[in-house]
Amino acid sequence: MNPLLKLIEHGQSYWIDNLTRRMIASGELECRVRREGLRGVTSNPQIFRKAIAGTGDYDEQIETMICGGRPCPEVREIYEALVTTDIRNACDILRPVYDASAGLDGYVSLEVSPHVAHYTEASIEQARHLWRLVDRPNLFIKIPGTLAGLPAIEQLLFEGINVNITLLFSVERYQAVAEAYLRALERRREAGLALDGAASVASFFLSRIDVLTDELLRHRITPETSVELQPDPRTLLGKTAVANAKLAYRSFKRIIASDRWKVLEDRGARVQRMLWASTSTKNPDYADVMYVEPLIGPHTVNTMPETTIDAFADHGSVRDTVEEGLDEARGVMEDLAKLGIDFGQVTAQLENEGIQKFIEPYDALLAGLADKCQKYSNRLGVAPLQKVAQQLRRDVITMTTAAGSGHPTSSLSCADIVAALFFHEMRWDPGDPGARNVDSFILSKGHAAPILWAALRQSGASHEDLSSLRKFGSSFEGHPTPTNPWVKVSTGSLGQGLAAANGIALANRLDGIAARVYCLLGDGECSEGSVWEAAQFASLNKLTGLVAVVDVNGLGQTGPTPYGHRTEVFARRFQSFGWSTFEIDGHDMEAILDALYRARKSGPAAIIARTEKGRGVPFLEGVHGWHGKALSQEEMDRAFRELGETGVHMTVEPRRVGEIRSVEAEPPPPLEPGYRRGEKVATRKGFGNALKKLGEHMPELVVIDGDVSNSTYTELFARSFPKRFFQSFIAEQNLVGTALGLAVSGKIPVAASFACFLSRGYDFIRMAGHSRPPHLVFCGSHAGISIGEDGPSQMGLEDLAMFRSLAGSTVLYPCDAVSAERLTEKALRTPGIVYLRTTRPATPVIYSNSEAFPVGGSKVLRADKDDRYTVVAAGITVHEALAAHDRLKERGISVRVIDAYSVKPLDASTLGQAASETRGIVVVEDHWCDGGLGDAIAAATNSTVPVHRLAVSREPRSGTKEELLDRYGISRRAIEEKIVALAGR
Amino acid sequence: MNPLLKLIEHGQSYWIDNLTRRMIASGELECRVRREGLRGVTSNPQIFRKAIAGTGDYDEQIETMICGGRPCPEVREIYEALVTTDIRNACDILRPVYDASAGLDGYVSLEVSPHVAHYTEASIEQARHLWRLVDRPNLFIKIPGTLAGLPAIEQLLFEGINVNITLLFSVERYQAVAEAYLRALERRREAGLALDGAASVASFFLSRIDVLTDELLRHRITPETSVELQPDPRTLLGKTAVANAKLAYRSFKRIIASDRWKVLEDRGARVQRMLWASTSTKNPDYADVMYVEPLIGPHTVNTMPETTIDAFADHGSVRDTVEEGLDEARGVMEDLAKLGIDFGQVTAQLENEGIQKFIEPYDALLAGLADKCQKYSNRLGVAPLQKVAQQLRRDVITMTTAAGSGHPTSSLSCADIVAALFFHEMRWDPGDPGARNVDSFILSKGHAAPILWAALRQSGASHEDLSSLRKFGSSFEGHPTPTNPWVKVSTGSLGQGLAAANGIALANRLDGIAARVYCLLGDGECSEGSVWEAAQFASLNKLTGLVAVVDVNGLGQTGPTPYGHRTEVFARRFQSFGWSTFEIDGHDMEAILDALYRARKSGPAAIIARTEKGRGVPFLEGVHGWHGKALSQEEMDRAFRELGETGVHMTVEPRRVGEIRSVEAEPPPPLEPGYRRGEKVATRKGFGNALKKLGEHMPELVVIDGDVSNSTYTELFARSFPKRFFQSFIAEQNLVGTALGLAVSGKIPVAASFACFLSRGYDFIRMAGHSRPPHLVFCGSHAGISIGEDGPSQMGLEDLAMFRSLAGSTVLYPCDAVSAERLTEKALRTPGIVYLRTTRPATPVIYSNSEAFPVGGSKVLRADKDDRYTVVAAGITVHEALAAHDRLKERGISVRVIDAYSVKPLDASTLGQAASETRGIVVVEDHWCDGGLGDAIAAATNSTVPVHRLAVSREPRSGTKEELLDRYGISRRAIEEKIVALAGR
Repeated sequence: MNPLLKLIEHGQSYWIDNLTRRMIASGELECRVRREGLRGVTSNPQIFRKAIAGTGDYDEQIETMICGGRPCPEVREIYEALVTTDIRNACDILRPVYDASAGLDGYVSLEVSPHVAHYTEASIEQARHLWRLVDRPNLFIKIPGTLAGLPAIEQLLFEGINVNITLLFSVERYQAVAEAYLRALERRREAGLALDGAASVASFFLSRIDVLTDELLRHRITPETSVELQPDPRTLLGKTAVANAKLAYRSFKRIIASDRWKVLEDRGARVQRMLWASTSTKNPDYADVMYVEPLIGPHTVNTMPETTIDAFADHGSVRDTVEEGLDEARGVMEDLAKLGIDFGQVTAQLENEGIQKFIEPYDALLAGLADKCQKYSNRLGVAPLQKVAQQLRRDVITMTTAAGSGHPTSSLSCADIVAALFFHEMRWDPGDPGARNVDSFILSKGHAAPILWAALRQSGASHEDLSSLRKFGSSFEGHPTPTNPWVKVSTGSLGQGLAAANGIALANRLDGIAARVYCLLGDGECSEGSVWEAAQFASLNKLTGLVAVVDVNGLGQTGPTPYGHRTEVFARRFQSFGWSTFEIDGHDMEAILDALYRARKSGPAAIIARTEKGRGVPFLEGVHGWHGKALSQEEMDRAFRELGETGVHMTVEPRRVGEIRSVEAEPPPPLEPGYRRGEKVATRKGFGNALKKLGEHMPELVVIDGDVSNSTYTELFARSFPKRFFQSFIAEQNLVGTALGLAVSGKIPVAASFACFLSRGYDFIRMAGHSRPPHLVFCGSHAGISIGEDGPSQMGLEDLAMFRSLAGSTVLYPCDAVSAERLTEKALRTPGIVYLRTTRPATPVIYSNSEAFPVGGSKVLRADKDDRYTVVAAGITVHEALAAHDRLKERGISVRVIDAYSVKPLDASTLGQAASETRGIVVVEDHWCDGGLGDAIAAATNSTVPVHRLAVSREPRSGTKEELLDRYGISRRAIEEKIVALAGR
Repeated sequence: MNPLLKLIEHGQSYWIDNLTRRMIASGELECRVRREGLRGVTSNPQIFRKAIAGTGDYDEQIETMICGGRPCPEVREIYEALVTTDIRNACDILRPVYDASAGLDGYVSLEVSPHVAHYTEASIEQARHLWRLVDRPNLFIKIPGTLAGLPAIEQLLFEGINVNITLLFSVERYQAVAEAYLRALERRREAGLALDGAASVASFFLSRIDVLTDELLRHRITPETSVELQPDPRTLLGKTAVANAKLAYRSFKRIIASDRWKVLEDRGARVQRMLWASTSTKNPDYADVMYVEPLIGPHTVNTMPETTIDAFADHGSVRDTVEEGLDEARGVMEDLAKLGIDFGQVTAQLENEGIQKFIEPYDALLAGLADKCQKYSNRLGVAPLQKVAQQLRRDVITMTTAAGSGHPTSSLSCADIVAALFFHEMRWDPGDPGARNVDSFILSKGHAAPILWAALRQSGASHEDLSSLRKFGSSFEGHPTPTNPWVKVSTGSLGQGLAAANGIALANRLDGIAARVYCLLGDGECSEGSVWEAAQFASLNKLTGLVAVVDVNGLGQTGPTPYGHRTEVFARRFQSFGWSTFEIDGHDMEAILDALYRARKSGPAAIIARTEKGRGVPFLEGVHGWHGKALSQEEMDRAFRELGETGVHMTVEPRRVGEIRSVEAEPPPPLEPGYRRGEKVATRKGFGNALKKLGEHMPELVVIDGDVSNSTYTELFARSFPKRFFQSFIAEQNLVGTALGLAVSGKIPVAASFACFLSRGYDFIRMAGHSRPPHLVFCGSHAGISIGEDGPSQMGLEDLAMFRSLAGSTVLYPCDAVSAERLTEKALRTPGIVYLRTTRPATPVIYSNSEAFPVGGSKVLRADKDDRYTVVAAGITVHEALAAHDRLKERGISVRVIDAYSVKPLDASTLGQAASETRGIVVVEDHWCDGGLGDAIAAATNSTVPVHRLAVSREPRSGTKEELLDRYGISRRAIEEKIVALAGR
């Protein structure tokens, strides 16, 4: 006879530690119950994880729940529906056992979430919830026997909810659990409730105890131990678990022998049976039934995995054993103590590990389930999104044909991607373009503007007429500009979107907004190095919320792009820059949704989408020669026939990403420079000092630098505010682009580098101008030939021209530390693009700390009614002008000296006055002759007096500062000579 | 008894088809000869390749030859030394057989180079050379029996050189070979030479014939053939080779039966034996001795590979067979013909394949040998180069300490690399900085200038004092500039060298110069996107001569570089951009030399060298805080103690890469525009037309464009001169950098894009200015708001400021197609940086085709003595000004109109005259207000009359050209209003 069937004769039920839908559906469970004497089932997250995530057995139910037409349920709800379905079915299969045993046996156990193991109230809530959901009398709710679990257990049993107390390792804790049962019964009695209305088992764990204890024993039997330990640790290996269980059973026997219990038993209370759990043998050297055979006796359950059931069926031997060898058991526990093994610590560790062992698969189960849910939910969204994409295509063609120009084919290639983003993936609110706690979108391939306008219009975010595209006054411009409120940064000069996206992602992180930033690029624009600067920055800064989508349509303006449809080239590149990548068919809506979903967890992530330019209209698809060309009316009609009728309208549900933490900043106190007159301090140092001071009171102030922070002195800010300082390394395009992204996200960014290296980012600066940020400050240090020995490559000599030419820009140029601090403060408060020019060498402080420096002002440093000429200087040349003034004075020539610290706007009135009061102006500047201060002053003093220029007009070279100022004609000597010549002496 | 030993009794010798040094050294060969009856050996390139390249058996001899102190021999010489050593030793082992058989047997065969198979004279030369080298009577020189081989064979045999005629497949060719032998003998007889003085065998091939014939037969036995072929092709499989050989043997028998032979034989001539070659069985279905057993008989040799020898020894059966089955043999050949198999074609194909089969391993052998030679030669160079590197380090420290600034540590990290390049790898001439047919070097990490100066000085190329570093007047500037004649392009703004290297490599290719270009980069600068633009361009353009070396010293200016010493990051990136990569220890001289050697064959190649900043001086090595700092005198002394004494002087042998093809260009004929007045043609089209015309007569004119050639109209040039047109795709930094590289290599490059996108390359443009190229022309199209609908991102509005500000630049701005063509011509002939601004819309032609447009000139288009104001315009606004003139005239106000096509230099005299003759100037320009034509004119007309400006001063948007000109105040209406207002009407 099968030994399993004999167990019941000795008072032991055997249960199985496994439950899956397949077991139920295949009839296996029923067979075991009917033919093999199985009397109960327990489940756990590990087994459900394998069954749900690893097989398709549950997919039908998942799909029905998600696609059932009702609002999409949460993942937890789906999880509960899946497992309670199984549990309920199992309960029904075991119901005959339950009924036949009058409620003594025939139970199925379902575990609460392992995350509530240490929370009494949450455990109670969950247990009640699951009890209601399953709604079967032969259900056990499994609750871990932690300290927090004890009151929950008592309460639940009191309420009549059956509890299987799990994760018991120590006799002491078992006793506490038994006590909880007794108290629950007593409370029921007091409340007049039936005592057989609450069943319980106490699950005592076996093999894990030996695994850990054996490990500790083995530490004591290494060959390095010369002393002979007493007792010999070898003799204890594999003995602890059973010994411990036998002692627990002894406790159990004492309890059911107590008077307290008798009272309850007499009133119908059922025994809280001992359940042996974790009874598979882990160590292959041990017998495979070692946790079954010695623990047979009345009022016991042994929950076994399949292998142990099979082993016992094959060669298990059955007799009453559980009360044998109690002395030996006691001896084992004493010997452990003698060897210094603290069994209390062992059981505590096992309890913690036990909880963790379920948390991991439980979380994995929910994550796996979320993936499946997403897949079904995606599938659900595919058909309408495909229609939306077709509608967007119609709109694109309508717009561009009405305009007679634009880029329809470049828009069609990304229509599916844009539909997926705007109508499915992105969390945004079409009613609020100013919202910050939403996902952002940057159309880096700006020439595809029509697809953006179409998406905004279809979603109700913009209301312009489609036919207004590219018309004067419409916000639907040829390329995206902030004239349309949904556009954060102007694009159209390719390769710029990703750096701006970096800045937005940084701002989100600073403000605790868990939003994502999507940037759509073309394959052609990936030839721009700036894309790779930005890609490096994103991965170095772990911008996990950043998702780039590359629309690989394979055609550029003049022909095929360099890599055609070879998406793997872009994937390899993004990978080599530290990004996750997904290569997909960019017209397969399900693939798009899936990639977007996966990208959520793996940012910065690049989705490399293979597409066709002109997709959707066969005569345009992948055909060269259509770049930037609109269709004729006739061609449009033909295209519409190809696209078919859509007549779709899909509503975008407004969604936000959490709440914005509102930062209430006090108005900062006025800046207080603290220099002594004559003290030599470089203006770049003054700038750094000011940043540090201002940072204290301006939480929106952020600084970004290109690996020269010890030269620009942004390091002073970086040290005090490391979280608001960003390192762009030697990548100035990204420096500017990221700063712009920060600027359009409510920050006041300062981007600093050598003045000459800002020329690297000039296209980005130009486009920043077109993006009209509220505040964006650039600081160029080491301007001019006064840097000295490093030579021409390091001399910023065109920076004034560069920044001056931009419409609406402000250009400031301090000459000492006081003006540097003051002008830094002004720069941060001046709207738009501001450029601050600083100098390498230390220069004497000439202003008092309280001097004010309004934008558009100037300082008349020397003036006399006899002034014959006016010397206008700025920055380093102010000091040369002052020295020249003194020397000329000695020679009897009086000159006015003006510090034109505000190069743009210029102080036209002061200069005009000087012009009218003197015979001519000499402008002296450390800059190329054209485009700088000289041009500015000639423009301002238009035709009133001659403007003579001293500026750098020949190729400079290495040398000392003094040599260079002199050789290139902008020194004190040069000024003196010029004035003397003008004065005709 | 071993069947092999019985062969000789039947008149057949067996030879082995294998010879290696190991066989000789191990005694195997001797054993085979003495004990197993082996009577000859043949060798071939395939076997030598495996032995020489695949084992170390020859390395000692190679090393001795290379490092023996004598001048390094050529690879061929080494090859010959290796194989003739083996052949000679084998001859000596077989000599007893030769002697015992009185010269009938005991031969060793050595093959001439397979490359001479079709060259009679070369075959003779080589055979003589090898015969002399080996100097043994029992040597056979193997000569293929090609048509070209036949006269060589006759001549060599006549001269008494033994010949093994190989690669015989047909009976006809065998007969020709036999004839050659007979004639040689007859000539010897005539010349009175001994007839036994020349031995010969005719090697007739077996298995290859069956391989090919069987293939042709199988084509005829596919299941698709429904008709029954006669004869059945199946019956012929595997029969052809032996049948063919038997027929050849029959010919042989006829010959030796002839009277002609008898005469010779009587005078001592030896029979030219038939040698069966290629006798291993390829088809496993066939017997492994199928090419031995049926071909046994008198006067034969069978040359077998080892496996066939073993098979025959095991189960070969020996009897006279070669003359059996002659009828069947004849039948086989007839049947092939019936099946349409042309056996003449079969043998011709086999002969060609046979030669190719030896060419491949032969070339591989020489290449493998070259690798080994290089390795030994490198090793030889290591010690002195290490000393040179240490000396360079001393020089670097000397220089920077004397200067008190500079970047010693960044120089020390690459000292080993620079020593390897300048004193070993590069082919250059320290006496000729202007040479073009030499390898080039670009120090992209320009701050390491001291190491470059040190290398130039140590090699005798520069003679400046070390102590002059960074001093005014020295060519040893802080960063490399062309003040030093060895510097091609200024560097120091990082990330620029590789694009310039691209340009130099392109110029080399155009001029047929097989030189390499080396570019040394820092790891920090690889953060610059421009590096990756250039990397993409190099691989797309297959610039195989380009080698980048990345000095990964792991420290930037402010701290660790983003990836520290993780060389794999850079390797993966370069790979993802299509480059070969080598990761090495940048201080292991042998590794450096090896990588440089391997890079020669795999360009574009990047060597990623792990280095330490400050290497060589322990207190500097890898220590942060030393960037850009010089050592004190005391620290220098300490460093010198660490570096040790070097006292080395290594001479750089001047080397060139081939000859320069001198291109003699006729002076181009004058350009002839062909437009009608009033015809509407865009200036960009005029530019394109001019390029196409000028390209015809200016071979040095090259054009590079950034995927907008159909907008800039460079496509007109590209179509006519595709080899001189380069596609930079959407990568404007590379566009400019590559153009500069071309410019400093004798080309006249035109780099074209939209005007606005040139701002992307402004740092490159600035540095191009500092590089002082002879000619470098930029064309910016689509300038200004007149582009219309595309919106602000596409409008070049700062380009005039950008180019005007650069010292020494020229800025030209045509207004019609005639001036566009003329100014394009002028641009190409004007030295330095020239910017040509073109316009999108078509504008009417206003000039006659013969009009001249000198640089610095202007055109007074409307003038009258009554002129009250002067309107100065350029480009698109010229047409607005002309229209305004007409309308004002109608209103009775006369204005002068000037076309200021030369924005820089400006025509100060004409403008001055206009200023003096009118009451004020109105400048109207399609550009931002600052930095453009207005500033230029205000500067030129300094204080003589008021200069009023009409320019773009607000953010523009999309709209029609006309709308925009009007809304932003630069239209005919705006001019008219301004003048009217000034006139006070």
